[in-house]
Amino acid sequence: MAKFSKLTSRSEDYSKWYNELVVKADLAEQSAVRGCMVIKPYGYAIWEKIQAELDRRFKETGHVNAYFPLLIPKSFLSREAEHVEGFAKECAVVTHHRLKNDPNGKGVIVDPDAKLEEELIIRPTSETIIWSTYKNWISSYRDLPILCNQWANVMRWEMRTRLFLRTAEFLWQEGHTAHATKEEAIAEAEKMLGVYAEFAENIMAIPVIKGVKSPNERFAGALDTYCIEAMMQDGKALQAGTSHFLGQNFAKSFDVQFLSKENQYEYVWATSWGVSTRLMGALIMTHSDDNGLVLPPHLAPIQVVIVPIFKKEEDLAQLMTKLQPLADHLKAKGIRVKVDTSDKQTPGFKFADYELKGVPVRLAMGGRDLENNTIEIARRDTMTKETLSLDGIEEHIINLLEQIQQNMYKKALDFRLANTREVNSYDEFKEEIKKGGFLLCHWDGTPQTEEKIKNDTKATIRCIPSKENILFNGNNTIFQEGKCMVTGKPSKQRVVFAIAY
Amino acid sequence: MAKFSKLTSRSEDYSKWYNELVVKADLAEQSAVRGCMVIKPYGYAIWEKIQAELDRRFKETGHVNAYFPLLIPKSFLSREAEHVEGFAKECAVVTHHRLKNDPNGKGVIVDPDAKLEEELIIRPTSETIIWSTYKNWISSYRDLPILCNQWANVMRWEMRTRLFLRTAEFLWQEGHTAHATKEEAIAEAEKMLGVYAEFAENIMAIPVIKGVKSPNERFAGALDTYCIEAMMQDGKALQAGTSHFLGQNFAKSFDVQFLSKENQYEYVWATSWGVSTRLMGALIMTHSDDNGLVLPPHLAPIQVVIVPIFKKEEDLAQLMTKLQPLADHLKAKGIRVKVDTSDKQTPGFKFADYELKGVPVRLAMGGRDLENNTIEIARRDTMTKETLSLDGIEEHIINLLEQIQQNMYKKALDFRLANTREVNSYDEFKEEIKKGGFLLCHWDGTPQTEEKIKNDTKATIRCIPSKENILFNGNNTIFQEGKCMVTGKPSKQRVVFAIAY
Repeated sequence: MAKFSKLTSRSEDYSKWYNELVVKADLAEQSAVRGCMVIKPYGYAIWEKIQAELDRRFKETGHVNAYFPLLIPKSFLSREAEHVEGFAKECAVVTHHRLKNDPNGKGVIVDPDAKLEEELIIRPTSETIIWSTYKNWISSYRDLPILCNQWANVMRWEMRTRLFLRTAEFLWQEGHTAHATKEEAIAEAEKMLGVYAEFAENIMAIPVIKGVKSPNERFAGALDTYCIEAMMQDGKALQAGTSHFLGQNFAKSFDVQFLSKENQYEYVWATSWGVSTRLMGALIMTHSDDNGLVLPPHLAPIQVVIVPIFKKEEDLAQLMTKLQPLADHLKAKGIRVKVDTSDKQTPGFKFADYELKGVPVRLAMGGRDLENNTIEIARRDTMTKETLSLDGIEEHIINLLEQIQQNMYKKALDFRLANTREVNSYDEFKEEIKKGGFLLCHWDGTPQTEEKIKNDTKATIRCIPSKENILFNGNNTIFQEGKCMVTGKPSKQRVVFAIAY
Repeated sequence: MAKFSKLTSRSEDYSKWYNELVVKADLAEQSAVRGCMVIKPYGYAIWEKIQAELDRRFKETGHVNAYFPLLIPKSFLSREAEHVEGFAKECAVVTHHRLKNDPNGKGVIVDPDAKLEEELIIRPTSETIIWSTYKNWISSYRDLPILCNQWANVMRWEMRTRLFLRTAEFLWQEGHTAHATKEEAIAEAEKMLGVYAEFAENIMAIPVIKGVKSPNERFAGALDTYCIEAMMQDGKALQAGTSHFLGQNFAKSFDVQFLSKENQYEYVWATSWGVSTRLMGALIMTHSDDNGLVLPPHLAPIQVVIVPIFKKEEDLAQLMTKLQPLADHLKAKGIRVKVDTSDKQTPGFKFADYELKGVPVRLAMGGRDLENNTIEIARRDTMTKETLSLDGIEEHIINLLEQIQQNMYKKALDFRLANTREVNSYDEFKEEIKKGGFLLCHWDGTPQTEEKIKNDTKATIRCIPSKENILFNGNNTIFQEGKCMVTGKPSKQRVVFAIAY
């Protein structure tokens, strides 16, 4: 089967490996519409787990979901000057609202009589339409805070697209909050970054660096962009989530004021924060190997697959007297179990398929095992297997899943630390950046220097890391003052440079 | 507060009552984009409950979720001839992919250089894009069935819109399945109609009539459309869900064939089925009253609200010694409870607000109750209240919620039966239809007669009911043969006529 032709290895061509893996593991594929993907059922099941974990965290921190329109009047985009600079250009524009039969043929054409008075844009992000709505919701400090989130599709007309990483249409959540004070808004933006980081590390097993963006990398319209940055196996950085302190920019653009406790009209303070199906790309590129996907147990749609090895129906029936109770007990403990009793594929085919799909634990039992009261248990993360007694196997499996989760996180963190280094001169930087990884360097804080480095090397400042991060294996001099590697001007701390996705 | 200005009563102006209720109960509102609504947090919380209940049922019946592109190439719509007739005309058309700064001013304009080679349509429904995808997924009978569902936004450029009932953009789910045989596809379409009916009746407390559509009312491209029809309080019909047997139409249009067990190429058989945010309209118009929304407990985001009546902080603290344990115990039993200890509003304001929002059970406790070990318990469905001992109150509440659920269903069913009547002559029909309700009549089965009745009276055939329905309070002659009320030609059974939303 073409599906099981070997994956291109990561060392051979990392990019090709990624593209093949996404398709072969049944995660997503290109659609007939340029740049828009189809998220296949297995990929979507992982996304549903991501959604459920995040949604629970949003609700636990006091947020509610709502839904705002897909289309945005063109004029809204130019209300916030910086926002339009950053966003408005490459987007899908709706100009007409009707088709009609082509008088010359069989097909349909756009009806020229159905031109819209004002063009509508498919949302690239929803700040503008949401703040035009919040204007009606907010009149007094009693109406604040508003803590809304939206799960939605958005569209940015990207020229070069890659499945999950950069697609014209993608799925995401966008939180949009409104506050009475600057302090409260900043605290919200920081809180949600914390939610993202905790989720990334504990559920996705992806270690992230928390920090703020340099001015060049800020979201269009934000005063500060907080971010989490992850390192992929090829040493490139991937921005895994952002949280923006928007100040009063959108409130001013849409004239959203409230009457304060002190009976004065003031502009509302805003945040927005989002993660997207891009996280699927981060998941794949952090953990997967040349055999396929490797899923952390906390996210895996199937955590344990049980494969009976049989030739005859009677053999299967016998094996199932042991396997069905095992599956039932694991399910009762909340483990997501699949028992694959199909006789359409060989065990070898099944093993390769579940490896490709990244199922964390595989159990297999044949006639010999039945006699010996044993079972074979294989770990996807280490590709190791052992044969164990059935006695006490349930507890072992439950512990193993947690162990795999921790091991995947640790492995990724070790990799990141091993590929993070301090660099002190620009000459050294230009050499080191070619090897990939995160470079911790002093920078003078100016956009000009940042721009020069980007033009010279393609590297960007991923973030100005905050102090709680574990950044480096060596002596930690990151938060000490120093001199910019390019200009020699003073620098308060090192920042993280990398080539980014 | 304007919010608590009395609602227009249903008897005064049903349509106005509906529009006011949707906005005042914080369910939805018009947005800045014509015909597109904002679903507010409280309305969205109800929709999330609807989604969760349906999604669980879909998965229990073997379906998986996936995601397909928002945009559809224009040419796809004309592939299936009947489909394009029924759908393609009023839809949002994307013609360009870029904006640019207006050289003459401050705003942005559409960049004429960024015209798409082929226009893209925002999906009005996804049969075409999905079947173009299934072509790649299906080659053998081993690949069948495919049982996919998608939760998505869709857009139909409606000229006259009403919140939830008819909006340009709406949220829905659309199931799209592919089968090896005609029988299996028909069984799937019927099964999903059953899922919808069970959900409508047991969760939404909306009695529905199951049946099939007459040819005039069929989905564009379907061989048969199965539907559930509900009666609103004004006697009009509302189609609450549809399930389509699509035959091989889409497989033929997109050339989707499979190699059968008998080693022959055959076209794949298809179904599609969907319900939308329109269900929110059905929910409101089935149950609500002149005081606001009335929610069935199975769907209510808040099932029980507890309102302590206090003036001083100490009083509240004392009341909470009883109320907090009560709330905790109810939550532990899976009841969705809110304790409203806010001192920003008076108890009277809170009572009116929770009535407006349809919370099924309200508990209130003041100082006197505390002395007496009692609590006041109010039912939203009957607007009755009583004072009961705190002893055994938890079990009482749990039973009461179920009782309210049953009562709401029964009330709606009684109303429908009371407003359903047999009509035998066309003269009588023309008078009776003005009074609203469902009319059970003989019809000769021709589109011409159906068309004439629609033109004369605006009434349409809602469905040809299947035999398991309870349709009528009187002697049941519905499934007996008779003569068409218009033409006198033979008819096999009566069908359901009504004016529809």
